[in-house]
Amino acid sequence: MEKTNTDELPLAMNSTEKQETVCIFGTGDFGRSLGFKMLQCGYSVVFGSRNPQMSSLLPNGADVLSYPEAAKKSDIIIMAIHREHYDFLTELTEVLNGKILVDISNNLKINQYPQSNAEYLAQLVPGAHVVKAFNTVSAWALQSGALDASRQVFVCGNDSKAKQRVMNMARTLGLTPLDQGSLMAANAIENYPLQLFPMWRFPFYLSAALCVFFFIYCVIREVIYPYVYEKKDSTFRMAISIPNRVFPVTALILLALVYLPGVIAAILQLYRGTKYHRFPDWLDHWMLCRKQLGLVALGFAFLHVIYTLVIPIRYYVRWRLRNLTITQALLKKEDPFSTSSAWLSDSYVALGILGFFLFVLLGITSLPSVSNAVNWREFRFVQSKLGYLTLILCTAHTLVYGGKRFLSPSILRWCLPAAYILALIIPCTVLVIKFILILPCVDKTLTRIRQGWERNSSYSKSPLNGKTDI
Amino acid sequence: MEKTNTDELPLAMNSTEKQETVCIFGTGDFGRSLGFKMLQCGYSVVFGSRNPQMSSLLPNGADVLSYPEAAKKSDIIIMAIHREHYDFLTELTEVLNGKILVDISNNLKINQYPQSNAEYLAQLVPGAHVVKAFNTVSAWALQSGALDASRQVFVCGNDSKAKQRVMNMARTLGLTPLDQGSLMAANAIENYPLQLFPMWRFPFYLSAALCVFFFIYCVIREVIYPYVYEKKDSTFRMAISIPNRVFPVTALILLALVYLPGVIAAILQLYRGTKYHRFPDWLDHWMLCRKQLGLVALGFAFLHVIYTLVIPIRYYVRWRLRNLTITQALLKKEDPFSTSSAWLSDSYVALGILGFFLFVLLGITSLPSVSNAVNWREFRFVQSKLGYLTLILCTAHTLVYGGKRFLSPSILRWCLPAAYILALIIPCTVLVIKFILILPCVDKTLTRIRQGWERNSSYSKSPLNGKTDI
Amino acid sequence: MEKTNTDELPLAMNSTEKQETVCIFGTGDFGRSLGFKMLQCGYSVVFGSRNPQMSSLLPNGADVLSYPEAAKKSDIIIMAIHREHYDFLTELTEVLNGKILVDISNNLKINQYPQSNAEYLAQLVPGAHVVKAFNTVSAWALQSGALDASRQVFVCGNDSKAKQRVMNMARTLGLTPLDQGSLMAANAIENYPLQLFPMWRFPFYLSAALCVFFFIYCVIREVIYPYVYEKKDSTFRMAISIPNRVFPVTALILLALVYLPGVIAAILQLYRGTKYHRFPDWLDHWMLCRKQLGLVALGFAFLHVIYTLVIPIRYYVRWRLRNLTITQALLKKEDPFSTSSAWLSDSYVALGILGFFLFVLLGITSLPSVSNAVNWREFRFVQSKLGYLTLILCTAHTLVYGGKRFLSPSILRWCLPAAYILALIIPCTVLVIKFILILPCVDKTLTRIRQGWERNSSYSKSPLNGKTDI
Repeated sequence: MEKTNTDELPLAMNSTEKQETVCIFGTGDFGRSLGFKMLQCGYSVVFGSRNPQMSSLLPNGADVLSYPEAAKKSDIIIMAIHREHYDFLTELTEVLNGKILVDISNNLKINQYPQSNAEYLAQLVPGAHVVKAFNTVSAWALQSGALDASRQVFVCGNDSKAKQRVMNMARTLGLTPLDQGSLMAANAIENYPLQLFPMWRFPFYLSAALCVFFFIYCVIREVIYPYVYEKKDSTFRMAISIPNRVFPVTALILLALVYLPGVIAAILQLYRGTKYHRFPDWLDHWMLCRKQLGLVALGFAFLHVIYTLVIPIRYYVRWRLRNLTITQALLKKEDPFSTSSAWLSDSYVALGILGFFLFVLLGITSLPSVSNAVNWREFRFVQSKLGYLTLILCTAHTLVYGGKRFLSPSILRWCLPAAYILALIIPCTVLVIKFILILPCVDKTLTRIRQGWERNSSYSKSPLNGKTDI
Repeated sequence: MEKTNTDELPLAMNSTEKQETVCIFGTGDFGRSLGFKMLQCGYSVVFGSRNPQMSSLLPNGADVLSYPEAAKKSDIIIMAIHREHYDFLTELTEVLNGKILVDISNNLKINQYPQSNAEYLAQLVPGAHVVKAFNTVSAWALQSGALDASRQVFVCGNDSKAKQRVMNMARTLGLTPLDQGSLMAANAIENYPLQLFPMWRFPFYLSAALCVFFFIYCVIREVIYPYVYEKKDSTFRMAISIPNRVFPVTALILLALVYLPGVIAAILQLYRGTKYHRFPDWLDHWMLCRKQLGLVALGFAFLHVIYTLVIPIRYYVRWRLRNLTITQALLKKEDPFSTSSAWLSDSYVALGILGFFLFVLLGITSLPSVSNAVNWREFRFVQSKLGYLTLILCTAHTLVYGGKRFLSPSILRWCLPAAYILALIIPCTVLVIKFILILPCVDKTLTRIRQGWERNSSYSKSPLNGKTDI
Repeated sequence: MEKTNTDELPLAMNSTEKQETVCIFGTGDFGRSLGFKMLQCGYSVVFGSRNPQMSSLLPNGADVLSYPEAAKKSDIIIMAIHREHYDFLTELTEVLNGKILVDISNNLKINQYPQSNAEYLAQLVPGAHVVKAFNTVSAWALQSGALDASRQVFVCGNDSKAKQRVMNMARTLGLTPLDQGSLMAANAIENYPLQLFPMWRFPFYLSAALCVFFFIYCVIREVIYPYVYEKKDSTFRMAISIPNRVFPVTALILLALVYLPGVIAAILQLYRGTKYHRFPDWLDHWMLCRKQLGLVALGFAFLHVIYTLVIPIRYYVRWRLRNLTITQALLKKEDPFSTSSAWLSDSYVALGILGFFLFVLLGITSLPSVSNAVNWREFRFVQSKLGYLTLILCTAHTLVYGGKRFLSPSILRWCLPAAYILALIIPCTVLVIKFILILPCVDKTLTRIRQGWERNSSYSKSPLNGKTDI
């Protein structure tokens, strides 16, 4: 069996600096990858194994010993062992006393055990300093050096010196340690690598449902209806025309749903007369995924923009315009210019563009690095003021798009109104309620409630409190 | 009066870990929110209040005591009290001796007091370790857990152990502490949450002024002029046609204004023969908001791009093209193809696209996370080399757009030239001066000045200095 | 000679806090800039110089002394001297014993010396604590306060207290220190400011080569060929039409080249039966610059999108459409509607839009701040699943674009097929191989190999290992 090439051995062996020795318990894939990386970065590595003689795959330059012997070689021991096999460590409590145990384990499911692996380890070996680290890094990334996503190492532990040493080790390996506080954070750190966009699920499923519903709705109105009544094959509309109705409708509804929970919360607070009641759970969850809802809406708005801009390139549109022109030319009829049509057409386009522009601004400010660079006041200003302006512009865009046709009965097909009319229901509701909420009399009460005032409270009547304290 | 539900009490009470007790002075809204969050995260909380018996709103599980009694319970005391009421603390100096006082106060105005609140506190209670923290977090964010913008907690203090403990506390609350050094940073930290885009004001007002000016200018030329002379109603042009003249003009001028201060600074340095003079204040401020000027310009360029791309969808444009075609068809006249028109039309579009593309690249590299990932040399390369290339392309785009019409007198209306001609003045000036500055003879002198050389200086003649030192 | 104005002197002289004194060796430009900034931030500064009396340019308020005298004033000494002149420090070993020496030097070339400057300094003065810092900040940025790109200060050193003090100093100067671990990191820190987009070179040159090749190829087919056979002047096509063939072709090839190395690596692993062999160097480098390749491809895709959207605005296109319409009108011939053409036209446009949309999503997730916010699993999901979907959509876009014309011999000109046919070779190859690799039988073996299993290995047959260990 071939071993790793010798030319991969540490190049930078500084004779002046005495090499630190790290012990790794377990010779699985991740343990070996970590050991290999450590050897490359100038550490001396000792593996601890149940069957030291059978471990033939280990990187060149590393020793393999039995667990107790390996543990004696170093005061940092990395536990590359599954949680299920931690119990043998109870036999080693004496050797492990005072050592730093680095728990790098992950589970298969979120919250698999009531207690996090690192806390379980700390309980098994009370004399050792347990530090949770490295579980968010992948073995492949360690080996290849391609650390795009996972340069960050979340570190937590109760002993701050032990934590510092592990963080220094991470830095030497080219990683970015992030101190997450005490071992109580271990549970969150262990769950982290198992997540798959938890906050995006609700927005994703909701928008998928909206898309499917409106797609079928539009197919009925624009493909099946003309086929039934005129025997006309309009199936080709399913590629661009119908998506370009579905996307803006979904985007507008999702954008309105971003602002709906805030409006509901304000009504609840006004009704209860206090802000110290908890909101119902569904409202809490909804409020926490508003950013994701907004970004999904932005995605659909972006698609709508491009689908709209390609209109003049489409074969169907060119054919229709050409035929219209030819017919008019043959009839020798000039088309009179209608200023009101020009106004309507230009305004709904302009409103849409400005709405999209603000929407993109909102999207950019929700990038983590941008929102970290603004303070709370600025963030509120952008997300609330600009956000409502975006909603107003996009709703107006849809209203003007409807324009004259809005209430004409001819747009009903099988009693189904056009999709954009359905899309307007939620945004208009949100805007109307919000308008009521910012009326001075309502707004004043709401502001007082949000500053801690309570209707029916003896507390708020005390003249001293609420003035001296923050 | 209802209290907060018991099901919100800390879920993760680790019996193994002894609970740390934190004392909070003051029972205002922010104090209660912070206390509530701390209880949730496993801390034991004691409130200090002037009227312990009246404070009925406090979270379940927290004790309320008088100030001295509460202070004795913990060695970390959070001051949730307005600065104006700090003076009573002088009576408690004995109790507070050696304790960590966390100043979380904010002011109502920037630089309200000559001394920052935290430094004032440190002066009042000299025996305590004052740490400034938590003032950038909002009460609402703490309560709701929606910490989008404000997960960052700026921390400063003179005692590094006290600072470490407060930073650990912030981490336990799920926040990201950022060490800002000694208590001298407190002033900046207290001003931070009061800012509302300070660097964006000048670019914003400037661009608003430019927009208004050019909008009125274009309305005079394109709406009022044809109305006066031809009685033609062109008001609909105000929705798209005129904004699509105003936006590119504003964008180009703002982009040129990004590079103008650098050019002025170079001329000043050449004239003075040294770089160790300070620039005038207005030039300093201008140079510091170049990034914001450039991003506002990018916003206008983006709007210009979309306004241009929607042209073929507009009712007016379709109507005009159709009528043109019909007229030609009726006259049975074929339009000869002009290669030079095709070249002109295609080149100005291509130049505009490439300029916009580079402009977007510049915008992306000014995102905080991207500019943090490049070094100084790379940043200079992008912002200077690519920046000038962008300016050249955009200026050329405008010049070729003018094309043949440029000097024809027919484009003057009431002696007013087209807006794009005005827009070219600053960019062309900047490019001409820059061209002179990079001529080898001028560039050599400038480079020497920027490396520390001074005309009329005995220092620079010393053969030793400037060679050995950095 | 004028000195810096006195109004720039430190405004915030806190009498309560005793001023810390910092010593700077060397009076070059960077040394003076740093000293000036330190005076502004409240430090007391002493310069050490070979000729103390000749240094007339120093900031007001700083003393200039001989090296040994200056060194005695402070326990932090900043070495603003070129590495070549470090040797005089050997005479000062006694004075420097126990002091913190901050190495701020840079070299002129990457890896200019076998040993980093900081390590060389540590070897020269073994009794001092050497810390590497400040070399990534520019003198200009320090003076002007415009610290856009370079607020980050990489710090490394073997003594953690010395490092902490230097990091605090950086914070006081308004910079963001980043701990990079021990002095072994000094080499990387010294090379950092000399880099000019090292990972972008290969993608840049490759895409430039592809662009030039396809540009010439298209000029031959679309400008020279019609000129030779029809004496038609199509040179104007070089501004938009031909770039709009070159850009999508380059984008598609580059996108396929992002996924080709992964496919090659999988084949190599299957062939070798192990993942513990190293890949050849070219493959390693290729894999490490995949992100950059992808982003360059996205740039070209973006250009392709805008070049396509401007089509209806172009003079040539308008002229051609108008003439076509007039000709038909004169012939009184109506154009029959072809549903299959409508389907083809709409589908390739829709596929392109969706592909571009996913491509933009991929680009956004590769922003540093976004990719830091996702875990390894999410990153893999986006980059691998969404990435392949993007490749499939873009390849399908090109295939449907070809549509019916694909195999018609008329598109050959001088035996040269259209550019898009050449562009399809690599993407189709990648997709076919990938399809084979995800067949269950092949995929199962590959997954086992990637989990550490090896064909022909006694190790993998051990029943204990690979189960207990991570």
